[in-house]
Amino acid sequence: MDRRSFLTKATIGGATAAAASTLAAPMYAQGNRTLTMVTTWGRGLAGVHDSAQRDADMITAMTDGQLTVDLKAAGELVGAFEVFDAVTSGQADMYHGADYYFVGQHPAYAFFTCVPMGMTAQELVNWYYQGGGHEFHDELGKTFGLKSFLGGNTGAQAGGWFRKEITSADDFNGLKFRMPGLGGLALGKLGASVQNLPGGEVYQALASGAIDGTEWIGPWADEKAGFQEITKFYYTAGFHEPGAGLSLAMNRDVFESLTPSQQKIVEVAAGEGHQWSLSQFLANNGSALTRLQAAGVKTLEFPDSVWDAFAKASQEVHDENMGDELYKRVYDSYMPSMKSSAAWIDKSDGAYTRQRTRTQTM
Amino acid sequence: MDRRSFLTKATIGGATAAAASTLAAPMYAQGNRTLTMVTTWGRGLAGVHDSAQRDADMITAMTDGQLTVDLKAAGELVGAFEVFDAVTSGQADMYHGADYYFVGQHPAYAFFTCVPMGMTAQELVNWYYQGGGHEFHDELGKTFGLKSFLGGNTGAQAGGWFRKEITSADDFNGLKFRMPGLGGLALGKLGASVQNLPGGEVYQALASGAIDGTEWIGPWADEKAGFQEITKFYYTAGFHEPGAGLSLAMNRDVFESLTPSQQKIVEVAAGEGHQWSLSQFLANNGSALTRLQAAGVKTLEFPDSVWDAFAKASQEVHDENMGDELYKRVYDSYMPSMKSSAAWIDKSDGAYTRQRTRTQTM
Repeated sequence: MDRRSFLTKATIGGATAAAASTLAAPMYAQGNRTLTMVTTWGRGLAGVHDSAQRDADMITAMTDGQLTVDLKAAGELVGAFEVFDAVTSGQADMYHGADYYFVGQHPAYAFFTCVPMGMTAQELVNWYYQGGGHEFHDELGKTFGLKSFLGGNTGAQAGGWFRKEITSADDFNGLKFRMPGLGGLALGKLGASVQNLPGGEVYQALASGAIDGTEWIGPWADEKAGFQEITKFYYTAGFHEPGAGLSLAMNRDVFESLTPSQQKIVEVAAGEGHQWSLSQFLANNGSALTRLQAAGVKTLEFPDSVWDAFAKASQEVHDENMGDELYKRVYDSYMPSMKSSAAWIDKSDGAYTRQRTRTQTM
Repeated sequence: MDRRSFLTKATIGGATAAAASTLAAPMYAQGNRTLTMVTTWGRGLAGVHDSAQRDADMITAMTDGQLTVDLKAAGELVGAFEVFDAVTSGQADMYHGADYYFVGQHPAYAFFTCVPMGMTAQELVNWYYQGGGHEFHDELGKTFGLKSFLGGNTGAQAGGWFRKEITSADDFNGLKFRMPGLGGLALGKLGASVQNLPGGEVYQALASGAIDGTEWIGPWADEKAGFQEITKFYYTAGFHEPGAGLSLAMNRDVFESLTPSQQKIVEVAAGEGHQWSLSQFLANNGSALTRLQAAGVKTLEFPDSVWDAFAKASQEVHDENMGDELYKRVYDSYMPSMKSSAAWIDKSDGAYTRQRTRTQTM
């Protein structure tokens, strides 16, 4: 399926055509039920599949089997990018995935994964729980007949894999690079030819030369994907996904058919799954980076001039979406929350870890 | 009650005398039950009482009232520092509190709140879920007849409130300062007269001059406690509590009487409560700091020489505990996990947020 035409069609169809949840909620379903979860991840894809499986397993365990969640990885029931339609149409009961894959359905979905130069994972949680983020996610989900929760996080993603060093923003001109979401749109402004490929297809595209480089997640997941077998230049910090949230979204009619305690279990399983998933990435990245370096991978940081270009392009992408009323409302909530979180974190965690490093306590 | 004699007595009593969980587990209890939660927090104490209430409410909601958790704040059933004995003895079913209050029972309890120059909140989660931290917490709890979970977090705590600026480590000599846990022991090595007071008693002690200064949590909780009415010198970063975990600990026999799904609900409620609680502190600290500054509070950072003294004293405290076999095993797990987490976080989140600040994207 052509991703671009799929997104364009969905955008034209728009919010009202996709609305699916105006019926009265049914009575609570009785007895044990099996709920089908589809995902945007190939089976076994490190970290992201684990996050989906964790959310599924906790729901099953906490409901004592009243709800048994059956996970179908990408391609097992529907393709990675088809999970949104599968759940809104009722073909599946819920999906686990990165909501920025669905910016064609609505550009504001980007905020619930990440936006370029946006929130870190902790800042996202602060906003989601305390600053109105979850309410916006729910408002967006309601439009499409979904009940959406933050259910995983990769942490700050690595800048990615390149065939040669990046010395200026001009090096992105003409570069065929895999990067989804608004980050990819920003990179396009630097002249890159941006590709959006599901995770399971990236290795082959890089190996065949169909793309010149790629971001994926971070050292642990990237090592498992095997990119170090193809390229050796690895940028550890990136502008595009500073803390990528993964969503658990249930068909809204299905959610409303659950008992209040089952609904709470789904909500809390997703929340705890967010924390667990983030810890899995962050706990594994350090040792994976050491192994990658031992295997000859050169770790690098983009020069300041490239970050300047990233920042400028990222703001341009936001500016282009401000005509959308909901996008603007989300942006106007997100940005002050990020600034407030960041200001304190820099004065506390930031100052502390700088001193811990300086005093060589570690 | 004299805190020192209480701790000494408990230490002499030691682990074996306190063991309480060698009986066979009872059959699952039937029907609806009310479980009593005691806490180390005065009712309404910002953030920490909220964290206990959140854990309680989620358990109640997810079990559909099969387990109704009744929260008794400090002083309502037992005093703040008596919750440990109340739960191990079966007087109450569970406690929510900071486990470093119980270093007298075992010094390794410090690791599950925080140790000076130790882990941030995220590093603690990484270790707890992925690096063996939870298993150590459980091993320690088993000794005393508890089932322990991480159930809240304050984030990196502020350095605290002083009557005058701190220009060298000598300024701590003779200073009467409130600081619990191993951080307090480290501060004692700088000559401070360290006091351990529950949160509800700190304001009065500071106002009366019984103490010269205090740490509490951070801008939001400190503002609510009202310390800015008494002193105006506020250090935003501290060495003593870089990410203070709050524990939910259940009497182990009570835990084993729950069904497997109820047990999973308690575990996941605590985990999600940790994330929620941390977000509450971090989302509120930024705006609270702005208000404190507007009220004439001067925000400061300790000079490098003071941090050097903090780091040296912190290591001495660890060294003094290394004779304890369990303490050493926990330390030997904790420190490599912290270093590995920190190394990656600095290269990803750290490098990213530095560039975000430099490019003034915010």
